[in-house]
Amino acid sequence: MPALWGGRFTEDTDALMWAFNASISVDQRMALVDIWGSQAYARAIQKASVLTENELTKLVSGLDVVADEFEQGTFALADKDEDIHTAVERRLGEIIGPLAGKLHTGRSRNDQVATDVRLYMLEALGHLSEMLDATCKTIVDKAAEHIDVLMPGYTHMQPAQPVRFSHWLMSYFWMLDRDRERLADLTKRVSCCPLGAGALAGNAYGIDRQALAKDLGFDDITWNSMDAVADRDMIIECLSWGAQIGLHLSRLAEDIIIWSTREFGFVHLSDRYSTGSSIMPQKKNPDSMELVRGKTGRLLANLIQIMAVCKGIPSTYDKDLQEDKEALFDTLDTLGMLLPITAGVVATMTIDADKMAAALSDELIATDIADYLVKKGLPFREAHGIVGRLVLLSEDKGVGLCSLSLEDYRSTCELFEADVQGVLSFEASVEARDTAGGTARSAVLEQITEARKRLAQ
Amino acid sequence: MPALWGGRFTEDTDALMWAFNASISVDQRMALVDIWGSQAYARAIQKASVLTENELTKLVSGLDVVADEFEQGTFALADKDEDIHTAVERRLGEIIGPLAGKLHTGRSRNDQVATDVRLYMLEALGHLSEMLDATCKTIVDKAAEHIDVLMPGYTHMQPAQPVRFSHWLMSYFWMLDRDRERLADLTKRVSCCPLGAGALAGNAYGIDRQALAKDLGFDDITWNSMDAVADRDMIIECLSWGAQIGLHLSRLAEDIIIWSTREFGFVHLSDRYSTGSSIMPQKKNPDSMELVRGKTGRLLANLIQIMAVCKGIPSTYDKDLQEDKEALFDTLDTLGMLLPITAGVVATMTIDADKMAAALSDELIATDIADYLVKKGLPFREAHGIVGRLVLLSEDKGVGLCSLSLEDYRSTCELFEADVQGVLSFEASVEARDTAGGTARSAVLEQITEARKRLAQ
Amino acid sequence: MPALWGGRFTEDTDALMWAFNASISVDQRMALVDIWGSQAYARAIQKASVLTENELTKLVSGLDVVADEFEQGTFALADKDEDIHTAVERRLGEIIGPLAGKLHTGRSRNDQVATDVRLYMLEALGHLSEMLDATCKTIVDKAAEHIDVLMPGYTHMQPAQPVRFSHWLMSYFWMLDRDRERLADLTKRVSCCPLGAGALAGNAYGIDRQALAKDLGFDDITWNSMDAVADRDMIIECLSWGAQIGLHLSRLAEDIIIWSTREFGFVHLSDRYSTGSSIMPQKKNPDSMELVRGKTGRLLANLIQIMAVCKGIPSTYDKDLQEDKEALFDTLDTLGMLLPITAGVVATMTIDADKMAAALSDELIATDIADYLVKKGLPFREAHGIVGRLVLLSEDKGVGLCSLSLEDYRSTCELFEADVQGVLSFEASVEARDTAGGTARSAVLEQITEARKRLAQ
Amino acid sequence: MPALWGGRFTEDTDALMWAFNASISVDQRMALVDIWGSQAYARAIQKASVLTENELTKLVSGLDVVADEFEQGTFALADKDEDIHTAVERRLGEIIGPLAGKLHTGRSRNDQVATDVRLYMLEALGHLSEMLDATCKTIVDKAAEHIDVLMPGYTHMQPAQPVRFSHWLMSYFWMLDRDRERLADLTKRVSCCPLGAGALAGNAYGIDRQALAKDLGFDDITWNSMDAVADRDMIIECLSWGAQIGLHLSRLAEDIIIWSTREFGFVHLSDRYSTGSSIMPQKKNPDSMELVRGKTGRLLANLIQIMAVCKGIPSTYDKDLQEDKEALFDTLDTLGMLLPITAGVVATMTIDADKMAAALSDELIATDIADYLVKKGLPFREAHGIVGRLVLLSEDKGVGLCSLSLEDYRSTCELFEADVQGVLSFEASVEARDTAGGTARSAVLEQITEARKRLAQ
Repeated sequence: MPALWGGRFTEDTDALMWAFNASISVDQRMALVDIWGSQAYARAIQKASVLTENELTKLVSGLDVVADEFEQGTFALADKDEDIHTAVERRLGEIIGPLAGKLHTGRSRNDQVATDVRLYMLEALGHLSEMLDATCKTIVDKAAEHIDVLMPGYTHMQPAQPVRFSHWLMSYFWMLDRDRERLADLTKRVSCCPLGAGALAGNAYGIDRQALAKDLGFDDITWNSMDAVADRDMIIECLSWGAQIGLHLSRLAEDIIIWSTREFGFVHLSDRYSTGSSIMPQKKNPDSMELVRGKTGRLLANLIQIMAVCKGIPSTYDKDLQEDKEALFDTLDTLGMLLPITAGVVATMTIDADKMAAALSDELIATDIADYLVKKGLPFREAHGIVGRLVLLSEDKGVGLCSLSLEDYRSTCELFEADVQGVLSFEASVEARDTAGGTARSAVLEQITEARKRLAQ
Repeated sequence: MPALWGGRFTEDTDALMWAFNASISVDQRMALVDIWGSQAYARAIQKASVLTENELTKLVSGLDVVADEFEQGTFALADKDEDIHTAVERRLGEIIGPLAGKLHTGRSRNDQVATDVRLYMLEALGHLSEMLDATCKTIVDKAAEHIDVLMPGYTHMQPAQPVRFSHWLMSYFWMLDRDRERLADLTKRVSCCPLGAGALAGNAYGIDRQALAKDLGFDDITWNSMDAVADRDMIIECLSWGAQIGLHLSRLAEDIIIWSTREFGFVHLSDRYSTGSSIMPQKKNPDSMELVRGKTGRLLANLIQIMAVCKGIPSTYDKDLQEDKEALFDTLDTLGMLLPITAGVVATMTIDADKMAAALSDELIATDIADYLVKKGLPFREAHGIVGRLVLLSEDKGVGLCSLSLEDYRSTCELFEADVQGVLSFEASVEARDTAGGTARSAVLEQITEARKRLAQ
Repeated sequence: MPALWGGRFTEDTDALMWAFNASISVDQRMALVDIWGSQAYARAIQKASVLTENELTKLVSGLDVVADEFEQGTFALADKDEDIHTAVERRLGEIIGPLAGKLHTGRSRNDQVATDVRLYMLEALGHLSEMLDATCKTIVDKAAEHIDVLMPGYTHMQPAQPVRFSHWLMSYFWMLDRDRERLADLTKRVSCCPLGAGALAGNAYGIDRQALAKDLGFDDITWNSMDAVADRDMIIECLSWGAQIGLHLSRLAEDIIIWSTREFGFVHLSDRYSTGSSIMPQKKNPDSMELVRGKTGRLLANLIQIMAVCKGIPSTYDKDLQEDKEALFDTLDTLGMLLPITAGVVATMTIDADKMAAALSDELIATDIADYLVKKGLPFREAHGIVGRLVLLSEDKGVGLCSLSLEDYRSTCELFEADVQGVLSFEASVEARDTAGGTARSAVLEQITEARKRLAQ
Repeated sequence: MPALWGGRFTEDTDALMWAFNASISVDQRMALVDIWGSQAYARAIQKASVLTENELTKLVSGLDVVADEFEQGTFALADKDEDIHTAVERRLGEIIGPLAGKLHTGRSRNDQVATDVRLYMLEALGHLSEMLDATCKTIVDKAAEHIDVLMPGYTHMQPAQPVRFSHWLMSYFWMLDRDRERLADLTKRVSCCPLGAGALAGNAYGIDRQALAKDLGFDDITWNSMDAVADRDMIIECLSWGAQIGLHLSRLAEDIIIWSTREFGFVHLSDRYSTGSSIMPQKKNPDSMELVRGKTGRLLANLIQIMAVCKGIPSTYDKDLQEDKEALFDTLDTLGMLLPITAGVVATMTIDADKMAAALSDELIATDIADYLVKKGLPFREAHGIVGRLVLLSEDKGVGLCSLSLEDYRSTCELFEADVQGVLSFEASVEARDTAGGTARSAVLEQITEARKRLAQ
């Protein structure tokens, strides 16, 4: 019979039910934040005169011993440790005796676990924030390094217009920069302390919740005890955020996987981020990027899991909510791999500027030719149609747009003159788009500057 | 052959493919924002000397005519109108002639549709923000009205501790208040103008994108043209937000459905929000709340849809992204029903304070008895165990905890004295939890005051 | 006040609630199966002596009139028609008078709608079954036509071993063939008639449910009235099946999109299944395949929707279940587009055998060289290592594996002899894999034969 | 550098990449089926003359030693064991020397892992099938035991008509019986052997795949080598099946949770399947059923994960597919808990027939009164309206429908006569529904008989 709640029970828990109910295998990673939370709670109830100063000292130093055991890896789980909170309190009791039983005064596992999860999240999100910054920095540096490399820009995977390699790469910076913003936003909502909510009805010992929250490094307290123990929004928002990062990285992965095919050959992954085949000796596979793409599945699934759990359950705490942590931890862990792996791949991949240049086919200039006609006074719609016919003509003749004669050009529209030559260059095309967010060298450099400014903040 | 892109094609589109590809049935609701965006774009390219002032005037007033037709419901779709952008431009051409063809100068449907969606969202989110506020206000008013009603608080659906009805109801305010915060956060990211990104490479006509963004009421511009046409984050974030609201409302719905059972009977739904049975004449069903709970499914599904669409597609624009709008519109529409229906149900439901009082069983005081022992110096753990035995004793004797004799009490622990009577009251129990976020009258009133302050901002 | 259930209500339904609750916009497509079900039910209660023969005749022919109105498109919805069942009964009453009121004897909308949905599904699944067969047939025919075309087989998008184009294409046949099997399996479970289950408790008029089920073309009846009105398994299973098809088609789409890039160029989509760009005159985009890939999102989302709806709701009928139909219909409609579009794309796409041949690089033979060494007695593991070094050697020398000299070969392993030349051919490689399921001509033809046999059944 | 594929690599794998890529922590549970598969493959290539009989004997007995080590728990993983296949082969090499390297002849990890997963599934599904049967049997036995207990049947959680407790419970048998059917269907598709597909192109050593499949206990072989290594349908179908079971159990859990509230009190969970509170000594919570309900979330999420992984990836094997196993194993493990826990809860829960009887309120007879009027010749619709008015009358008078006077009855309709008394009984009501699937004793017993017949097959 478990120490924490067994008083009114006359029959033992079924053995399988015990395993089914226990969360210790999942929640033991919260040991240190649990202890930290308990120490702060002890201080709070001491201030509220539940404990003497002497009792407080014993509790806090007893908990320090337990924390040490976790840090040293010497903590031994007992059979009846159903969760980390029980385990810590059980061990504390062994060390300091019955006084340990005072720690739970006015505190329930409901508010305790809600607090632990938030403390754990704040720490983990701090680490991920650094990783996210580092990944962004890698992208910006790589972009800066290759500012002069041109390549085809694609829509629908079909060559569209020439772009700078850096412009393409920087597009991922902006995605991740939004993820940085969202992280800041959601952290505000994680940083509210539920301790003092009790099981659902609040605290009857007159503790100062604001002081307690501050002691634990929270920005604010939760305002309603029933909401405080029921709320899993911070997890849902975090898993939404994680899924969003996954989607961004999955698109980057897709680009890189396709570009490192033999047929594209735009980039080459380092051996450090590739693997081979057990049967085909020649293979070098972009497994790193495929796994990044594939792991989006679990990021998305973790979000769905917690959403499905929360759907339609009654208010306050229901045991269903115990199912929140595995999904949360899995997303945090997965991001902790995805971000550095992605950064590593980007940092170490080789850019094949020649292959990119070779892929710049004349048709990428088509829009520029239409723009040329517009500048001669033609409505864009008509210009678009004329260039469409030029494309067909060039396909018929089997030569690129740049190799058609002026005569050919004029056969589709009389507005073409010798100066059309001036637009028939990939460099001219990217430089023409010099408004904010465009492909011109200056515009891309402006992005890079802005990005560095944001990262420096 | 469609006017917009047919130039280089030699064969007609397959009829089923035409239907498969067309988005007009879905996107026509964006007609007005599309026109608004076109007018602003016309002003931008006029400033960039692509249009004369006279041409601008003709374009803008032509577009006004088209807008009028949409507002009057007289706009007639043509067979070849594959999307709303094509339809508007086609109609504009009928009204003002070939000049209409200049509107697309340097603009692609890729940046156009990205702009339209954001404009549409800003408007829709504005409406939903008001509905969310109104729902919050209803909750706060109802809570204030019934501040003195006590009821059992439940965890795991089992009676836990007495709470105020208002405290329970206010727990939903705080959930929705977080949704209000999240809405403000995500709106920042919606409010970035992608117009000028072109198909993917930016704008070659030197338009002033910041001025254009301001003209359309955006806060900022997007910083990278490839990201600008690829980005669906604002939709994903909006659908995450919508799903989160759905989860909150689904829990409220679950509470209300259970509480309006004959067996609980705590609340009675108004006839206005109930329906009957085609076969059982006595039935009055809480269909409104069941639909609210059920519609969480679609809010969640809409999020998954767009996430699944974006997973692993290459960068910039792929046609897959056309699948974004139905999910978005469905969530916006669904929220537009869920919020006022929920507010209506809450505003009109009757509270049965007698039934709630009758459900306040003695065992709800158990924690208070443990607290009593703690205040007499017992560690909480031991107190918990003693009260567990008291509960068994009361079950054996078939009487409530409050009806056990002092002797009975003392048979479990000698610390019980006559003054234990003082804690054996539901009123005393709720009032004892007077720290922030607790059940005491003052604490709940503090919540209500804070809530009203937030709503007034 | 609605006719069907208003008796005990004293207040009108809220107008927004009416719209929220009404399902007519979604369920009217079930009009004909609803009428068909009602006619069969009328026959059943006539046999049970609830109706006279004369009454039955009037009811059935009245319903025929209503069915005619739906088929002619002349049926006019009334404001108070909350669902298709109400609409039909209301109209029937207008035509034949109060006798219409007898139709609902012992029948509830709960068993009625459950029956309608199953009848509708059986019909729709019949159509989809034909489409699925047609798509399979297209694949098999195309495969047979191009049996002699070789191409690189890829794993991880990297060239692996040579395969026949037909072998690749046939791999999709087998995916869809499993979908055909699953369809047969799930249809058994759709084909159970719930009519006679009433609201939840069964039928008190002694109808013969087996006869009624047979009359409607069902294979069996449902065995428990509470399950009968609660069950949405057949929808969930159908949406799982639909999502699975979507996943198959999404992978085919991905292959085709990549292969129709300029860089691969293995296949060319017909103009009939391509679209262009509003700004880039040269573009020809594989929108058909991108939409197929993108629509997987909604197929997956529809499944999640109904699963989320059913999660954790109490047994029998809850109004939440009304949310089942939109998802179901959307999946059925979507598959009704995806399958013929995919078949059309495959049937009309051009195969560029030259491009495929050009992509067959020497390294695809690497496994064959290892196999050669194995046949000379080397353990495969060692052979694999040697060929790995050969690959590096060939990269160093800048020539293909087939162009290395025998000396080069022997520098890595003495077992190489002149006969190694015999394995250095793509044709030899595919022919070597002549076991069942392999790439040899005979093995692929065997697949095609088996596939045709299955389709003929 | 890993032994299996390192030959052509010049740089070491990044350490984090190694961890990211390795699957050993997940796939080691497949050790025994992997060994079993290898032994069968050794026999197959021996028959194809790749091995001598002596070599075969050594390989098989070497693998037996490895298997023993796994069974004894003495197998020691090495740092470079990236997956279970590598680990087994590495260890085999240590035991029998270089001969171990022959085991991979013509086999790739792609077909090997596909085979292992299917073998593992067949075994796990066999166990789950037994658990499913056992759960069904528990339900049927409990239903048979309490055949005479009446209770309110609910729709929308509102009292609808009286039903037998057994009828309610049997409704879950039928749900699970469909899950039994689906399991049989999907097992056919799991039972196809992919071994011999190689990396993607088939087997060049002339092995007899049908014989190999039979040796491993499969029913059939896969027909296309590219599909064979790409296919994850069997996992998706299995996870759909698992999610469906979860949904069924979640509804049962919801019923039981609500029925074991103090307010309903229909059932009492055994202490063995309940837990208590750390703060509220009186609590006894139905955690077992809440966890069953909550774990539906992960069953659903696992399905989504693998679907999201498979969406839009190119054909054959991509590393993304490595993400299949955790989801699969988690669903198998979860079902392995959910089924026996549910069976345990049902078997041990106490039925409170008195509470159920007390909840049978008069209004549950309303439909029977309408039926009475129908039998007197009134159309059901009119009868429904009259009883609606009777309900209002009874509410006004504050007495139940059974306590209204005949005069009261006749005030709403003259067709009421003294014999109406005969229908005013709950027993009469359930017995009236004696058609198949109804609530009559005979009809429920018929269900039980059929259920037992099915379970005996």
